[in-house]
Amino acid sequence: MATGMLLVCGLALFLTIKSNLLHSQQFTISFQRPSDCSVEQFYDISSQSCVKCGPNQSTSATGLSCECVTGFRVLATNGASITCQQCPLEKPAVTEDGYGCILCPGSLTEQGTCQCPSGSILVERDVQGNPLEEARCEVCNGAEPALSAPNSYGDRCQRCQASLINTSQSCVCGSNILAGGMCFPPNNLPTAVNPNVNYAELVRQHNRAQFFKCYLSGCCLSNKIKSCQALGNMCVMNMHSFSSVANDACGLYNTIFRATAALGSTQDISYWRANLPWLYYGDQPGLANRVLQTEPLPTGFSFKGRNRNTDINLVAAVYNARGDFLQWEKVGGNNLQLCPDTARRQEAAYTFGTAYQETCVLSVADLLRVYAEPLFYDVFVDLSRGEDRRLLPLPTRNLNQEYNRKFINQGECGRGYICNLNDWYLSRRVLLVDTLSGREKSLGSLPKSYASFQLVPGTQKGQVFPPLLSVTYSDVLITAPNTQTVSVLFAVDYEMDQTEAHMKTDIALGVLGGVSVLYSLVKTASWKRRIGSPLIDMETVLKFLLFYAGDLANVFFFITVGTGLYWLIFYKAQHFVSVLLPLPGLQEERFVAYVGCAFALKTVQFLHKLIQQLSVDIFFIDWERPRGKANKTIQGNGNGEAKHSPSPVSIWRTYFVANEWNEIQTIRKISPTFQIMAVLFLLEVVGFSSLALRDPWSDLQRPPQSYAPPYSLTLRYGLAATLWLCIGLLQIIFSSAFHERFVEDKIRQFVDLCSISNISVLLLSHRCFGYYIHGRSVHGHADTNMEEMNINLKREAESLCGQRGLLPNTDTQTFQISITSRLRLQYDRILEPLSRRNGPSRLVDAASGHPFDQSTKAYHTMNRFLGSVIDHAHRDMEYVVRDKLFFERVIGMEFLEPMDKSIFYNDESHSFSDVLFYGNEATLLIFDTLFFCVVDLGAQSFILAGVLTYVQQMIFRLIRNGIGRRNLANKTLVDQRFLI
Amino acid sequence: MATGMLLVCGLALFLTIKSNLLHSQQFTISFQRPSDCSVEQFYDISSQSCVKCGPNQSTSATGLSCECVTGFRVLATNGASITCQQCPLEKPAVTEDGYGCILCPGSLTEQGTCQCPSGSILVERDVQGNPLEEARCEVCNGAEPALSAPNSYGDRCQRCQASLINTSQSCVCGSNILAGGMCFPPNNLPTAVNPNVNYAELVRQHNRAQFFKCYLSGCCLSNKIKSCQALGNMCVMNMHSFSSVANDACGLYNTIFRATAALGSTQDISYWRANLPWLYYGDQPGLANRVLQTEPLPTGFSFKGRNRNTDINLVAAVYNARGDFLQWEKVGGNNLQLCPDTARRQEAAYTFGTAYQETCVLSVADLLRVYAEPLFYDVFVDLSRGEDRRLLPLPTRNLNQEYNRKFINQGECGRGYICNLNDWYLSRRVLLVDTLSGREKSLGSLPKSYASFQLVPGTQKGQVFPPLLSVTYSDVLITAPNTQTVSVLFAVDYEMDQTEAHMKTDIALGVLGGVSVLYSLVKTASWKRRIGSPLIDMETVLKFLLFYAGDLANVFFFITVGTGLYWLIFYKAQHFVSVLLPLPGLQEERFVAYVGCAFALKTVQFLHKLIQQLSVDIFFIDWERPRGKANKTIQGNGNGEAKHSPSPVSIWRTYFVANEWNEIQTIRKISPTFQIMAVLFLLEVVGFSSLALRDPWSDLQRPPQSYAPPYSLTLRYGLAATLWLCIGLLQIIFSSAFHERFVEDKIRQFVDLCSISNISVLLLSHRCFGYYIHGRSVHGHADTNMEEMNINLKREAESLCGQRGLLPNTDTQTFQISITSRLRLQYDRILEPLSRRNGPSRLVDAASGHPFDQSTKAYHTMNRFLGSVIDHAHRDMEYVVRDKLFFERVIGMEFLEPMDKSIFYNDESHSFSDVLFYGNEATLLIFDTLFFCVVDLGAQSFILAGVLTYVQQMIFRLIRNGIGRRNLANKTLVDQRFLI
Repeated sequence: MATGMLLVCGLALFLTIKSNLLHSQQFTISFQRPSDCSVEQFYDISSQSCVKCGPNQSTSATGLSCECVTGFRVLATNGASITCQQCPLEKPAVTEDGYGCILCPGSLTEQGTCQCPSGSILVERDVQGNPLEEARCEVCNGAEPALSAPNSYGDRCQRCQASLINTSQSCVCGSNILAGGMCFPPNNLPTAVNPNVNYAELVRQHNRAQFFKCYLSGCCLSNKIKSCQALGNMCVMNMHSFSSVANDACGLYNTIFRATAALGSTQDISYWRANLPWLYYGDQPGLANRVLQTEPLPTGFSFKGRNRNTDINLVAAVYNARGDFLQWEKVGGNNLQLCPDTARRQEAAYTFGTAYQETCVLSVADLLRVYAEPLFYDVFVDLSRGEDRRLLPLPTRNLNQEYNRKFINQGECGRGYICNLNDWYLSRRVLLVDTLSGREKSLGSLPKSYASFQLVPGTQKGQVFPPLLSVTYSDVLITAPNTQTVSVLFAVDYEMDQTEAHMKTDIALGVLGGVSVLYSLVKTASWKRRIGSPLIDMETVLKFLLFYAGDLANVFFFITVGTGLYWLIFYKAQHFVSVLLPLPGLQEERFVAYVGCAFALKTVQFLHKLIQQLSVDIFFIDWERPRGKANKTIQGNGNGEAKHSPSPVSIWRTYFVANEWNEIQTIRKISPTFQIMAVLFLLEVVGFSSLALRDPWSDLQRPPQSYAPPYSLTLRYGLAATLWLCIGLLQIIFSSAFHERFVEDKIRQFVDLCSISNISVLLLSHRCFGYYIHGRSVHGHADTNMEEMNINLKREAESLCGQRGLLPNTDTQTFQISITSRLRLQYDRILEPLSRRNGPSRLVDAASGHPFDQSTKAYHTMNRFLGSVIDHAHRDMEYVVRDKLFFERVIGMEFLEPMDKSIFYNDESHSFSDVLFYGNEATLLIFDTLFFCVVDLGAQSFILAGVLTYVQQMIFRLIRNGIGRRNLANKTLVDQRFLI
Repeated sequence: MATGMLLVCGLALFLTIKSNLLHSQQFTISFQRPSDCSVEQFYDISSQSCVKCGPNQSTSATGLSCECVTGFRVLATNGASITCQQCPLEKPAVTEDGYGCILCPGSLTEQGTCQCPSGSILVERDVQGNPLEEARCEVCNGAEPALSAPNSYGDRCQRCQASLINTSQSCVCGSNILAGGMCFPPNNLPTAVNPNVNYAELVRQHNRAQFFKCYLSGCCLSNKIKSCQALGNMCVMNMHSFSSVANDACGLYNTIFRATAALGSTQDISYWRANLPWLYYGDQPGLANRVLQTEPLPTGFSFKGRNRNTDINLVAAVYNARGDFLQWEKVGGNNLQLCPDTARRQEAAYTFGTAYQETCVLSVADLLRVYAEPLFYDVFVDLSRGEDRRLLPLPTRNLNQEYNRKFINQGECGRGYICNLNDWYLSRRVLLVDTLSGREKSLGSLPKSYASFQLVPGTQKGQVFPPLLSVTYSDVLITAPNTQTVSVLFAVDYEMDQTEAHMKTDIALGVLGGVSVLYSLVKTASWKRRIGSPLIDMETVLKFLLFYAGDLANVFFFITVGTGLYWLIFYKAQHFVSVLLPLPGLQEERFVAYVGCAFALKTVQFLHKLIQQLSVDIFFIDWERPRGKANKTIQGNGNGEAKHSPSPVSIWRTYFVANEWNEIQTIRKISPTFQIMAVLFLLEVVGFSSLALRDPWSDLQRPPQSYAPPYSLTLRYGLAATLWLCIGLLQIIFSSAFHERFVEDKIRQFVDLCSISNISVLLLSHRCFGYYIHGRSVHGHADTNMEEMNINLKREAESLCGQRGLLPNTDTQTFQISITSRLRLQYDRILEPLSRRNGPSRLVDAASGHPFDQSTKAYHTMNRFLGSVIDHAHRDMEYVVRDKLFFERVIGMEFLEPMDKSIFYNDESHSFSDVLFYGNEATLLIFDTLFFCVVDLGAQSFILAGVLTYVQQMIFRLIRNGIGRRNLANKTLVDQRFLI
C-alpha cells in the first residue's frame, strides 16, 4: 500500500505545475550601463538607458551628461540638455568655465582652452569678474617677499611651500635636494639610502606617494614628525626586519634612533625616542621575559560576583601609511578581526577566559577595496580606573621579523612561549593588510593577513601578566584578485604554566602505581593459593601482569577523571581567575595519553575477566531421590521403551535452574542502554556539553547567536566521565536500594529457586576455589505436583519447616569454598571422560550412543559424589564451615590453605555473582566509561560515542551469553537446547 | 581514592600561580587623547601625549599642531614648531595664508583677517602674486556679459549659477523664487506644496539638504532629472504612501506623473515616465497577478547536470538621497543583507532553492555611522545570456505602503501571496536604512530596517515566475544610539502552489479512508463471530471505532510518509526545478495535522491491542500421567509428610513452559534499542539530517563554514520515518532470513519445548477463538531423568519415533481454533471458583488453605477436561481439523461458525504470536516511528526523540511484562514466583 500510495501522490503533484501560458515579455528592459554608452551618448539615469547627445556634443567624463566638443562653448542650459555653439575664429579658445570664447596669448590645449607655460597662471577675467577679450599668462613672482607660485588650478598666484622657503628663502630649490616636491638641505646621513630594492621598484612604478621619496631623502632627520611615523610604518611593512649591512627602512630607523640619542626618550620608556615612533623593545637577552613575566597587570579579572570583571580593554592609536595620526580606537568590532561576524560574537574575543578562534576565507578583491590604505595600530591595554587613565603597551611578537635574513622569532615550542622566551625580539605596531608595499618585484600590491592574536598570561589570584600579541603575515601573490581568496585567523588564547600540575599528576601516578603493584602482588598470591599451586612460573608472571593491568587502569582512570573534574569545577566555578585551561596540543597531549593508557589497560582487564568467566566450572547437584520404583508396565502412548525403568527423578528442575543461570549470566546492576540514553540526553538535549566549551561560563543552554568557543578535550573527558559515573552510580543505588528490594532481585531469586527445586550449585572459578549455593529443599522432595509445591511454599512462608542453611538452624545458603586438591582431583577424574569428548576423540560420531552414555554416567557419578561430600559422607574429603576474617575479605585472599579439609566460608553477600557480569559492575562501568570517552576524544561526537558503546556492549553481551551458554552446557551436561 | 586524588591535584595546582615579585610599573604610560589637551597644548603624535605650544600660539582645529593667536603671523616654521610674530599697528590684519600682515579696507574678522561685504572678494596680492600693502574689496560684476559672483572662498569672481542666469539673465533671482540657492520661474503647479509636516520640520531643523527645498519648490517640473530622482527618493522614504488630499512627496510625484503624460513612457513600460523614476505599478485591479503570475522568467533553473544553473542574478541601480546615480551593483555581499557574515554564507541567499533566513541584532550607532547617507536601490533580475543583456524589474511589495492612512499591502494570509494577490499595489525602489527623514517630530534621525526579501516563484519545468521583493520597514525611536539595537531580517523563500497537492492528498485520504471503513467492518464482523455473539450493541460500535482508528492511522501514516518521501526524493533529486517545498507555516500546517492524527489514532490502536493481550486466556495442558504408585514409605529427608502420596507428576515442566512463555511476551522481531541507535547514527553521525535542510543539495556532510538553511518539517518527517521504516524492515529481514533460521527462533523454540515437555498450550484470545499448540510428547513421557531425555531427543533426531502433529503422521503442532460456545461455557465453569477468588471473596485470607485447594482442584479439572477434549473423549465437544481458505487468511475472518463441532485450523505460521508483541511488529514499528517523528516535529531534536522513544518502549515493555505475568499466573494457576 505504501508504494502504491506514493506513486499516486507523485503523479498528482507533478501535474500541478503546468498551468501557465506564455505571454510576450512585458516588463523586461535592456541592460545598459554608463560604460555601454558610445561617445555620442550619455547615460540617462531616470530611464537607465543611453541617450544620444545633441549636435556638437560628446559624453562628459562621468558619462551621465553631455559636454560641448572642443572649440564649442555652451550657449544655453535647460535641465540636463545643453546647446553648443562654435567659437568664432577671432576667439578660438573656450574659457575654463566653458561658457565663453576667448583669444589666447599662446597655444591651445587639447581641450580647446588656453595654455600657459609652467610657473605661469592663466587670467581670463579681471578682478571684478569681467571677461577679458584676450586671455593673459602671468608669471608668478617667486622672490622675496612675494614668494608666490601658481596654485593647483593654475589660475592664481599664492605663497609657495614652506619647505622651499625654509631651505632657499625662495620658491626654487636651487642647489638643495628636491624630493617629492619638497626641498631638503644636504646633511651627513646617507641621503640617498641604499634602498631595499622593492621600495625603489615601488617608487619607480607608481610614483605614488610623496612619503616614499621623503623617506629616501631622510625627511625624518629634519624633524618632521609625520615623516618619522611614515618611516616607522615603512619599517613595519618591512616586517620590522633589518640587517647589519643593508640600508632599508628599519636600518634607517635604527640609525636615526642611535643618532638622536641626545634627544632623550619620551614617556619614561627608554626604547621610545622623542619624535620617533616606538618600534622595538631593545635587544638585551631576557628582555622578553622581563617584559612579559615580571609584573602582573594591576587589574584583576573575576568571573562572578559583584566585582565581576571580564572585559579586556584594548585601545589602539591608528596611523595611516603617510604617518598621519587618525584616532584612538577601542579595539573591538572589525578593527583587528578581519572576519565578518555579528558584534555579539566578535565581542567574545575580548571577554577574559573565552578561548576565541575565528578563521575565514576572504576575497582578495574585497581586501584590496576595503584596505586600499593600510592602517597601523599601536595597541595598548587600557588600565584606566576612573580618573587615573593609564595604558600598558602591548608587546608584539612578529613571527616574520628577520635579522640578517634569518627569522628570529619563530621558536620551536608550538604556541606556548615558556620554552625559549629569551630568544625573542619584541616589537610594537602592527598592520592589518598591506596593499602598498608589494614585496615581490613582479607585483603591484600584496595584502598581508594578520593572524593569531594570542593573549598569554600567567595568573595570580585574578591577576595576569601582560598579554602578548603574536602576528604572522603572509604574502599573497596576486594573480586574479576577483577569484583569489586568502584565509585569515584571529585567536585569543589563555595559558597557564602546567609544569607543576604535570609534576603533581606524575607524583600521584607514581604513588598509586606503587600501591597498585602491591595490590596486584596480593592478588597474584591469592590466585596462586586458589589454584593450589605453589610454583612461580611464567603463568604466574603473566597473571601478575594481567592483575597489574587492571589496577593500573584504575589508577590512570581515577587520575584522569580527577584531573578532568578538577578543571571542570575549578575553571567553571572560580570567582577570581586562578586557573586557566591547558591549551590544546602540547599541554593536553599527556592527558590524552593517560586516557589512552587507562582504556588499553582496562580492555586487557576486561577481556581477562571475560575469559575467566567463560571457563568457569559449574555443576548442579540434584538432591532429589526417587520416591520408589515405578510399575514395570505403564500406560505408555504406544511405545514400549519405558519398561523396566526405575521411577526416575525428573531432570526438569535441573533444566529450570540451568536455564535461569543461563539467563542471569549477563544481567547487570545498571541498564546499559538506559545509561547511554541518559548520558546522551543530559549532554545533548539538556545541554551539559556546553560545560566543555573553553570559556568560563556555566550556562547549559547558549543562545544560537552567541559565540561558540572550541571544546576543551580535558573538559569533555571530565564531563563525560563524571556524568557516566554519576548516572551509573545512581542506577546502582536505585537498583540496590529500590529495585532489588521491592521489585525483583534476580540473584536472590536464583538462590531461592535452588532451594525450592532441591538443587545445589557448585561453582569452581579457580582450581581449588569457588562458590557453593546450598539448595537442598527443606521439604525433602521438590519433584512433585502443583498441589504439593503450593503446600510446601505455604509451609515455608509460615515457617513450619526447617531452615534452608547448610548447617542446621542457619539460613546461610551461599558459601565461598576453598577445596582440597584431593577433592579437585576426584572432581576432575569424574569429568575426565567428558573432557576427552571435547578433545581429539571428538572425531567420534556424536550420534553414536557413546557420548550420551558417558555424559549421563558422569552426571550421575558426579551428583552422587558431590552430594556425599556435602553430606560429610566422605571421610577423606571433609570440610569445615567458618566465617571469613575481615582482613581476608578486604584483601580478597584466604589465609588458611585447605590441606586436609576443605573450607566453606559463609558468604551472605552472594559473591558467587563474581563469575557473572552482575558481580563485576565496577569493571564494566569503568570500561564503558572509558570506551565512551575514548571514542568521543577521537571523534568529538557524543552521539557516535554512544552508538559505538551500545554496539560494543551488545557484542560483548552476545559473546558472554553465547560462549557462556556453551560452557554451561559442557560443564553441567544439560543439553544446550534447554538453555533458552 | 578518586576524591583523595582530586584534592591532591587541586592543592598542587593552586600553588603554582604565586611566584612573582611585584616590581614598579615599568612600561605604562598615561592615556592622553587629542581632546584631553588644553588650549595651549597640542597633541604630539609620536609620543602620544600633550605638549605645550610656543608663545603666542594656540591649538589648531585638529589639535595636532599649533597656530598663531589672532593678530600674530607665522614668522618661521621648523618641522612641527612655528614661531609667531605680532603684526605691526599699521598692518593689523594677518593675511589669509597666515604668513603676512596687511592693512584692511574695512573691519577685521574674529580670526584677525580682513572682512569684505557679501558679493565682494578680498584681494591681498596682485595678479603676479606680489603682496599688496593694503587689501582691497572688489565687487563682482553680476550683469551680462560678466555674470560673475564670488567663489566659495571669497577670493575670486567667477561665473554664477546657471539656474540664476537661465531665469533672470543675471546673477540675481529678482521676482522669481529663490529656493535652496537656486532660482525658479513661477508656474502653474503648487510651488509651495502643502508639505508633510515632518519634512518641513526637518528642513527647518537641519537646513541640511538643498534637495528638500528643491522638492518643495517643484524642481522636478523644470526638468531637472536629478531633482526628480530626489523627489522619488523622498517618496520612497515616505513608504510610497500618499493620500488623495495631502500634497506630500508621493502626491507631488503622482501629480507630476499625470501632468507629464505627454512626455510619454520610457523603455516601453507605461508606468515609467520619461525623466521620472519608476515608483509604482499602476493601480488597476489584478495587476499584481498579471505582473507576478503571467509569464515565467526566460531562464530555467536546474540543480544538476551540465546545464546546472542555480544563480539568481540580481543587479541594482543605486542612487543616493540627492538623486545622484551612483553605480550599477551586483546584488550580493552586504548590499541588501545588513547582517555581517562571510561571503560564502551570504552567497547562499542567491542560490536558487536554498531557503535563506538571516536575522541579527545591529547597533543603532553602527547603522547611523555606516548608512549616514541613505542609498536607494532599483533592483532588477539580470536575464543576460551572452550578448543579449536584459533586465527584469523586480516588483516590490512595500508592506508599509499606505493610501489615505490605511495600510494597503498587508494581506491576511501569512507569507504566502496566493490568497489576495489582487489587492496589492506593487512598487519599485527600496531603501535600506533611512537616517535622513525622521518620521517622528521629536527626533533627529530614524533608520528603518529593511526586512524579509521574499522570492516567491511558481514553477514550470525549471522555470519560475518573476520573484517578488517584500519589504517591511520599522521606525526606531532613537534614544541612546550607542546602546540601542535593532533587529533586522533578510530571507529568501520559494513557494509553489500547493492547492493541487492538497487536493490529491485529500482524494487519496478519502479513497483509502473509505477502504479502511470496509476493512474495519470486516474486522468487526470477524470479532463478533469470534466472541460468538450475534448482537450489535454499544460494544460492537466501540470495537468498530477502535478497529477503524487503527486502519485510519495506517492511512494517515502512509499518506504522510508518502508525501514526506515524495518531497524528499523529488525535491532533492530533481535536475530541473519542478517542485518546491511547502513553506513552513500555513502550507505545512495540514501535513503536521495529518501526522498528529496518525499518531493519536495509532496510539489508540496500540493501547487497544495492549489491553487485549493483557487479558488473554491461557492454559497449559499437561499430558503426563503418573508412572505408577510410589512406595508408601520413601527415604525422606526426615519429614514424613510424603507418605501415602500417589507417585506425583512433576509440575516443573509446566513451570518451565510458563516461564518461557513469560519471557517471550515482549520479544520482538527487531531490537528496539538497536533501531534507535541505528537511526540516530545515520541521522546525526553519518549526517542524513542534512537532507532535511531546505536547500536542493543532497550532500550528507556540510562544511561548517557553509550556510545552514532552516529545516523543513516535511523533509524531517519524511526522512526520519523512512529511515526508521527502512532500518526496521532490514532488521525484520535479517531476523527472519538469518537470525531465526541460523541462530535462534524463540517462537519455534517454544513450540519445540512444548513438545519435549509433553505440554500443550491453549490460548483463547477471544471468547470462542484462540490458538492451540499441540505439545504431546511423542515418547509418551517427558517427566524423566537426563538419560531418558537424551535418548528421547536422539531418537527423535533419528526419526525413530512418531511425528509431533495433532493428527497422526502430521507435523502441524499449531492451530487457530474456533471453539463452540458449549466448550467455552464448560471452560468458564471450571474456572469460575478462581474468578470468584479475584472478586469480592478476595477478602478471605489468602493464607488459608482455601484458595490453594481451589486452584489445584481447578487446575486438575481443567487439565483433565481439556486433555479429554483434545483426545476426542467428549462426544458433545468434538472438533474437526481443516485448512483455512486462502480468502479466510487474507481478510482474517472465519466463514464457518463452530455450531456443533469446534474447528481447528492448521496454522503453520505460528500465528499464536498475535497475542505477543512478536506478532504485532507492524503496529509497534509504526507506533514507534510516529512517536519518534512526533517528538521530533515538536522539539526539532532527533536525540530527544530517540531518548523519549526509548523511554516509551521501556515503559510499555514493563507494563506488558508485569501485567502479562500477573495474567499468566492467574490464568494458568502457576505461581508468579516461578515466572522469573
